[in-house]
Amino acid sequence: MSSLQEATIRITAFDWVPDFAQGKVRDLRLRWALEEAGLSYEVILLGQGTQGGPDNIARQPFGQVPAIEIDGCTMFESGAVVWKIAQTSPELLPEEEGARDAVLSWIFAALNSVEPSLSALAELDFFQSDEEVKAKCRPGAISEVKLRLGQLQDALGDRDYLVACRFTAADLMMATVLRMAEHDEILRDLPRLGDYLKRVTERPAFKRALADQLEPFAENAARYESAA
Amino acid sequence: MSSLQEATIRITAFDWVPDFAQGKVRDLRLRWALEEAGLSYEVILLGQGTQGGPDNIARQPFGQVPAIEIDGCTMFESGAVVWKIAQTSPELLPEEEGARDAVLSWIFAALNSVEPSLSALAELDFFQSDEEVKAKCRPGAISEVKLRLGQLQDALGDRDYLVACRFTAADLMMATVLRMAEHDEILRDLPRLGDYLKRVTERPAFKRALADQLEPFAENAARYESAA
Repeated sequence: MSSLQEATIRITAFDWVPDFAQGKVRDLRLRWALEEAGLSYEVILLGQGTQGGPDNIARQPFGQVPAIEIDGCTMFESGAVVWKIAQTSPELLPEEEGARDAVLSWIFAALNSVEPSLSALAELDFFQSDEEVKAKCRPGAISEVKLRLGQLQDALGDRDYLVACRFTAADLMMATVLRMAEHDEILRDLPRLGDYLKRVTERPAFKRALADQLEPFAENAARYESAA
Repeated sequence: MSSLQEATIRITAFDWVPDFAQGKVRDLRLRWALEEAGLSYEVILLGQGTQGGPDNIARQPFGQVPAIEIDGCTMFESGAVVWKIAQTSPELLPEEEGARDAVLSWIFAALNSVEPSLSALAELDFFQSDEEVKAKCRPGAISEVKLRLGQLQDALGDRDYLVACRFTAADLMMATVLRMAEHDEILRDLPRLGDYLKRVTERPAFKRALADQLEPFAENAARYESAA
């Protein structure tokens, strides 16, 4: 594994997103991991509507954010990039092989066993304009979220972190997923999970990453709102 | 990375699933990767209804299939396990670091940028019992699938494989996701993607993995069907 310390790192992010997505765009995961790892980075800000253009498709085949360039080599998918960064940083990954394997299991679990239920709920709450479909589908979507988050809380048990009694990239990824539940009251019924999310997002690296994502949104809001 | 060649490897799988899920359960990904890597393994068959019990929850916190035990150490999530196996096998992963990073990006892309649209469609087609909701939601679900698969076909271009002009774990993962589209006609409109799926699933290791997943289903069908 080559060191990232001397590499030129650039990530993509949006220059503005609507309110419901602010603080939730997935470049937050990369920013947070880079902050934890003590790596500095530049940001390529994409204007809304340009993410599907050829420049971004060349970096990210699905026209999404984020991607990363490390000395000009591109990676995409936040899970892949966080794992890449984690391997160079003891802040994000323990040394012991079994613990590293567990972190990888939990990164995939955050994205594939927890996030899908929260994405389905967010889709209904933010994008479903047919009120009848929403009314019929929401109880099932809430049940699925409660099932997954309940299983997660059980798996966490009385521990403070998912793996090896310490903060790892698994907690970083899981916390960014759990923040998708914040628009609902679900976490109030899962107090240990709520405490876990609070514990993990109180880290200074998270706060810096969040502030850095939000900064251009405030600067560019007037321009997008006047165009709307 | 310790060798898996001498390890005792056990994976979990179901002893039977309903027709629509046969050949699609995610232990197929592990079986295929293990076959490509030339690793032998044992199978722990779970009876339907036992996956949420304490034995399986101890291995897989969300009560799902598959998990893997490597000399007694457990990992879960098919993406994590395929990556673990790939790192020990030149059949699944090139040596060059940039190519390995690209494989990891594509594994996450298969699971997080392609699979969600196909899961949403499968959810409607196999689980949505309200015909009105289905009629209202299916056009949007089909559009989303077509968008993602179109982007994937564009990214593949004229190449035979996703990374480094050769079969890798990225193709393994993407093919298992694309097989979720086989119940619809979508792939007929995306001939290069259809050819890609055919090319990748013609591999003998895939065929062995599929036959091995299906074998207990046939044996146990009568027992489950008489209990239904």
